[in-house]
Amino acid sequence: MDFTFDARTEELREKLLAFMAEHVYPAEPVFHEQLAERENPWTSVPVVEELKAEARKRGLWNFFLPGEHGAGLTNLQYAPLAEITGRSPSLAPIALNCAAPDTGNMEVLAMFGNEQQRKQWLQPLLDGEIRSAFAMTEPDVASSDARNIATRIRRDGADYVINGRKWYISGAMNPNCRIFIVMGKTDPDAEPHRQQSMILVPRDTPGVHVKRGMHVFGYTDGDHGGHAEVVFDDARVPAENLIAEEGSGFAIAQARLGPGRIHHCMRLIGMAERAIELMCRRAVSREAFGKALAQQDVIQEWIAEARVRVEQLRLLVLKTAWLMDTKGNKGAHTEIQAIKIATPASVEWILDKAIQTHGAGGVSQDFPLAELWAAARMLRLADGPDEVHKRSLARRELKRYL
Amino acid sequence: MDFTFDARTEELREKLLAFMAEHVYPAEPVFHEQLAERENPWTSVPVVEELKAEARKRGLWNFFLPGEHGAGLTNLQYAPLAEITGRSPSLAPIALNCAAPDTGNMEVLAMFGNEQQRKQWLQPLLDGEIRSAFAMTEPDVASSDARNIATRIRRDGADYVINGRKWYISGAMNPNCRIFIVMGKTDPDAEPHRQQSMILVPRDTPGVHVKRGMHVFGYTDGDHGGHAEVVFDDARVPAENLIAEEGSGFAIAQARLGPGRIHHCMRLIGMAERAIELMCRRAVSREAFGKALAQQDVIQEWIAEARVRVEQLRLLVLKTAWLMDTKGNKGAHTEIQAIKIATPASVEWILDKAIQTHGAGGVSQDFPLAELWAAARMLRLADGPDEVHKRSLARRELKRYL
Amino acid sequence: MDFTFDARTEELREKLLAFMAEHVYPAEPVFHEQLAERENPWTSVPVVEELKAEARKRGLWNFFLPGEHGAGLTNLQYAPLAEITGRSPSLAPIALNCAAPDTGNMEVLAMFGNEQQRKQWLQPLLDGEIRSAFAMTEPDVASSDARNIATRIRRDGADYVINGRKWYISGAMNPNCRIFIVMGKTDPDAEPHRQQSMILVPRDTPGVHVKRGMHVFGYTDGDHGGHAEVVFDDARVPAENLIAEEGSGFAIAQARLGPGRIHHCMRLIGMAERAIELMCRRAVSREAFGKALAQQDVIQEWIAEARVRVEQLRLLVLKTAWLMDTKGNKGAHTEIQAIKIATPASVEWILDKAIQTHGAGGVSQDFPLAELWAAARMLRLADGPDEVHKRSLARRELKRYL
Amino acid sequence: MDFTFDARTEELREKLLAFMAEHVYPAEPVFHEQLAERENPWTSVPVVEELKAEARKRGLWNFFLPGEHGAGLTNLQYAPLAEITGRSPSLAPIALNCAAPDTGNMEVLAMFGNEQQRKQWLQPLLDGEIRSAFAMTEPDVASSDARNIATRIRRDGADYVINGRKWYISGAMNPNCRIFIVMGKTDPDAEPHRQQSMILVPRDTPGVHVKRGMHVFGYTDGDHGGHAEVVFDDARVPAENLIAEEGSGFAIAQARLGPGRIHHCMRLIGMAERAIELMCRRAVSREAFGKALAQQDVIQEWIAEARVRVEQLRLLVLKTAWLMDTKGNKGAHTEIQAIKIATPASVEWILDKAIQTHGAGGVSQDFPLAELWAAARMLRLADGPDEVHKRSLARRELKRYL
Repeated sequence: MDFTFDARTEELREKLLAFMAEHVYPAEPVFHEQLAERENPWTSVPVVEELKAEARKRGLWNFFLPGEHGAGLTNLQYAPLAEITGRSPSLAPIALNCAAPDTGNMEVLAMFGNEQQRKQWLQPLLDGEIRSAFAMTEPDVASSDARNIATRIRRDGADYVINGRKWYISGAMNPNCRIFIVMGKTDPDAEPHRQQSMILVPRDTPGVHVKRGMHVFGYTDGDHGGHAEVVFDDARVPAENLIAEEGSGFAIAQARLGPGRIHHCMRLIGMAERAIELMCRRAVSREAFGKALAQQDVIQEWIAEARVRVEQLRLLVLKTAWLMDTKGNKGAHTEIQAIKIATPASVEWILDKAIQTHGAGGVSQDFPLAELWAAARMLRLADGPDEVHKRSLARRELKRYL
Repeated sequence: MDFTFDARTEELREKLLAFMAEHVYPAEPVFHEQLAERENPWTSVPVVEELKAEARKRGLWNFFLPGEHGAGLTNLQYAPLAEITGRSPSLAPIALNCAAPDTGNMEVLAMFGNEQQRKQWLQPLLDGEIRSAFAMTEPDVASSDARNIATRIRRDGADYVINGRKWYISGAMNPNCRIFIVMGKTDPDAEPHRQQSMILVPRDTPGVHVKRGMHVFGYTDGDHGGHAEVVFDDARVPAENLIAEEGSGFAIAQARLGPGRIHHCMRLIGMAERAIELMCRRAVSREAFGKALAQQDVIQEWIAEARVRVEQLRLLVLKTAWLMDTKGNKGAHTEIQAIKIATPASVEWILDKAIQTHGAGGVSQDFPLAELWAAARMLRLADGPDEVHKRSLARRELKRYL
Repeated sequence: MDFTFDARTEELREKLLAFMAEHVYPAEPVFHEQLAERENPWTSVPVVEELKAEARKRGLWNFFLPGEHGAGLTNLQYAPLAEITGRSPSLAPIALNCAAPDTGNMEVLAMFGNEQQRKQWLQPLLDGEIRSAFAMTEPDVASSDARNIATRIRRDGADYVINGRKWYISGAMNPNCRIFIVMGKTDPDAEPHRQQSMILVPRDTPGVHVKRGMHVFGYTDGDHGGHAEVVFDDARVPAENLIAEEGSGFAIAQARLGPGRIHHCMRLIGMAERAIELMCRRAVSREAFGKALAQQDVIQEWIAEARVRVEQLRLLVLKTAWLMDTKGNKGAHTEIQAIKIATPASVEWILDKAIQTHGAGGVSQDFPLAELWAAARMLRLADGPDEVHKRSLARRELKRYL
Repeated sequence: MDFTFDARTEELREKLLAFMAEHVYPAEPVFHEQLAERENPWTSVPVVEELKAEARKRGLWNFFLPGEHGAGLTNLQYAPLAEITGRSPSLAPIALNCAAPDTGNMEVLAMFGNEQQRKQWLQPLLDGEIRSAFAMTEPDVASSDARNIATRIRRDGADYVINGRKWYISGAMNPNCRIFIVMGKTDPDAEPHRQQSMILVPRDTPGVHVKRGMHVFGYTDGDHGGHAEVVFDDARVPAENLIAEEGSGFAIAQARLGPGRIHHCMRLIGMAERAIELMCRRAVSREAFGKALAQQDVIQEWIAEARVRVEQLRLLVLKTAWLMDTKGNKGAHTEIQAIKIATPASVEWILDKAIQTHGAGGVSQDFPLAELWAAARMLRLADGPDEVHKRSLARRELKRYL
């Protein structure tokens, strides 16, 4: 269990910290101005493209992707870098082409796509030219149980025809989100884990209706393409668009979710560090009832508790990354669930205290805290609610005594 | 300590419940459609005016205001009615002309305004024709300590000239918000509790700049006029606009906040009841992993805990109302703080669990839960953050042992 | 919903407060000395008998028992009196002959006992001459589900013969605990709610083996007769000892537990008030790091939170008492569960904070806090663990939506 | 940051696990029988001496002590071993001569004692022949601020004369506890951190009065010598008994507490693992309301939460050990405080849930859970209450922004 940062990690951290200081943090106010001014509330803005160009030039690109297609980092190498990007989560991950859901989609294509699929869709994604969506969650079923997914993918001659309703399809409101990976049932009569398949559906396919952006608390997340409700109404694509084989959808989803969860957790830790920094800065600079907030025991307790929690979370995330590297995603199953359970809830708590320290400013658009809070809160639901992961983890623990 | 609902309360409850069932709940979807369609994102919409007309016709009007100007109810009579309106907090309070901040402003005018002020501003407010704002909080000071308020109200001949920056001025983005009650310093050299005064500043006064709407977790609260940042730049009003006398601002603020706090708590309880209802309905209708959510122990725990908390909160609010009626606001000081501490935090917890029960829908615009959550969360800061009230309550408790 | 204390309550409160001040509090150190000196660690001590005599002389006796046999108080009248006794829970309840488990046993005898049973056992209990035990809980089954109780009560001619193992039989280590009400199965083949019966078993019956005292966090509770493990090994009693009729055990248990639960909650509130008082006294008198504990925000937060919780609990207990008086125990079913869920947990929290304020003294025998904590903690298990009550309450709530 | 167990650690772990399985766990019931039968409630029992002999024979001895006097392990090597001993905390640490407070006292003597002191006291302690106490805490001052310690150590010719009152002096009730390290003021007029000194006071010194055993909840901890109140009344010892030099007491105390805190945390993690194991075993074997406890979601949530917390705690303890080894105790200051804040509170929570899963058995003497709980709870106070550590840690965090 060795979490030491190796030379490559240290070098990339240094480069990334410089990029954050020189480009990302200064871009934050510009970003918000450009967002306010754009016409289409779902498109990206120029400063993001500038950051992408600069990051790529500096060799800060596609860190998330192991293997030949990406930067080839291990999870343990990527973890501290992803944490740093979490400090500015609207800008830094996308600047490095490391933003969800594209990351997961690129992984799926790299691992399970055929050559043609990789050429057509993976390459422009790796180049940051287009964006993509992962269409799994449905409004009408408890989607935390992937076997419930009801969208129908029916074979019809040389095509598949897709019918169903999806929502919270992140990124899909952005017109540059050109390709959807859709999960649905190809064989409702197969055994439960073999009913689902994944298929590539280009945005401009007839029968694909992007209806509206779903909200997260009051946020539309328009800066990264929102969360769309999408209806597939007899959407027809060639059979070659199927990823891997019929019935492999559940297995691919599982493979995709492990890395996705740890990436979220890494970034959440960066968000927590940002929150602690803001909380401390506010506490030393603001006075109430005759003394600085920093001198109030209650606020000191929050800061201490936040620090103690973050240290624990980071170590568990590092251990998980190390396990994934050394024993594979399956060998890290318990730990991936553990960080998914612990991180969003703890970071939500830290953000709440940072908000409280900022008074009304804390809930406003003048500080990033409220929006970060909503993101952390959402992650107690996304990729399976806390309760599902807890039950599953507990059952594995209990099995040892049966 | 008698909380029995008297005959008048029972009669009004019955009428109000009928109004809710027949008009308010059916208006909710219409309201959201009209909001989406309006051009100015800060104005009211037609269905609200229709509800107001209907409510007034039914004698459901100005319940909040004791004395001759309002319905003449006691706090104990008003409490169960305000709770009911809290079940649809965007529509029912305004429909009955019982929405903050107008309620507090009408109280100030009724108690402290002179005849001319009451005629010019109180009457149209009582008639629901215009709206009003209370400009106290400032971005640059810890406004929970009212003595910090730094806006300057300087006498200049027959006028007062106002300079300062305010924010989170609820309702002020609505163009029909015609009058601001502004708190500021008339005499910075007086002893701390006599430095502040309140003054009436019409919206169209030169030098009044309504700059932007502040957010609350992404919500603009545009449906009730948002939360404005307002700059007063040499805004000049006649000296007669002063409310009561110079130096009385702190005392008026205290008088205004007591009822304001209990009204918020009453409505929060209605919000909690709505959340429990939604949580139960979801739990019985949604299946996951082979059984209804309602059969999961964890969700049963949430429901039980929610019920147990609401019962306690309601009783404490009723006791507080009864104390205000029998011993005055001062005699209920501890209890007003107690409900301000307990209610937003408990209701926030309940809403969080209701959200979790709804999955992604819980954070969306398709259910009212996330927006209610943001309102409850905001109330852990508004009118003084929890920490300030706790310290103050504890000091009174400790005094008994000194 | 009228919780006003009537004239009789006010008069008894005054008398009881005088008795507490003049006799009970002064007796506390004497009590602990006498406990340390007694030879049998399970017997009562002289000061308790003196307090009983004094209380009875003052008309402070058998408050708990409605109807002709007791003081004839309503639950609402008894509630504030029981709360006061909770401030000194080792002495005051027993001094007034209002201590569990005798209270519940007297209720059972008064309601369900026949004339002979009442004469032989109820009368000396009402006179405070003997003590009694309620033998229900068993080590080998989840006794929160009363239908699990496995002790066998077998008819054999003119007798019943009892076999089984019980534990946590409170009071039974005291040699003056002369009579056990034993719950067990008379007909294992009846439908689940008709299998159980209750029977009177005198302590000196051959086959009754009082084995050992069970602990509660290291406490033996020897001052009120401990918590015994008792084995019934062919214990034979005359058939007349059966209470009511065969198969009525479950119903009697239910009838007994409602009042028992509210009495515990009433006393817990008195314990919480004692804890707040001790916490405040400590906070004003102890200095650390240059200021009184009372000036630390964190301790102020604890005190405020404690006060806010106690106010809510008391009101819910009063409402429950009022409901029991006006609608019967069945009509108060939800509220009885609600206070059983809320009170021990909240009071445990308050005691924890009071302990923390006292440093090492808080966990010691020099302050009553640690022992009170253990009592509160035990009540999250006794008479059904929290989880069972929450599930049951939630199911009733959910039923409204099915 | 490399936490890999090296070869020596792995070898010792294997040996220790074998010793636990073959000797310690089987000795637990014997231990309790012998405790119940001994005459002096403060002495050790034969089975403990047998375990010590066996452990020493197996080379499982004095693991805690770095350097030539002990086993020479690093903190990182010791951590997993100490954790294992925490699974049976009444037997395993003492069996390996690794029990507090002797461990800390041996460290003090090894680091600061002169040759004569080491020969006379360290050697028999290293051999497990005698026991020792650390007399720091006083009832009359907030001892978390070591500068408050008021006991007077006055130079008188060739002697020092000691006057003062101490309590919670762990181990001191055991007659074989032969030597006390006493902290007190040699120079009340020196600057605050130079007023205190430490001095060796043999138990049989005239003027040393061991008054009584203090309780922790209901426990006397008699099996390891209890927690004594000790009065020093003109106790006179030769000046050579002073440890190091006058004024060095505060510094020695600081040096002693770092390792002491991490040892406690290591063992607490073992206690938590034991609790999880017991909770799981109970859950799979006990039925209530028609299904095994293990099938209830609520209990699954507890188990999952417990597992997630323990994993985080262990990693933070390992990191702290690694830091102490690589950067010294000062370099690990923040982390030592972090584990002192996090571990007792989290383990207390886990034990509470394990207790709840066991019903009444959980609070009884038939399972170790309640006693372990009391030990964990005590550690939220011992060596400085949580609040003191949180404030201190927060101030260091805040300093970065001043």
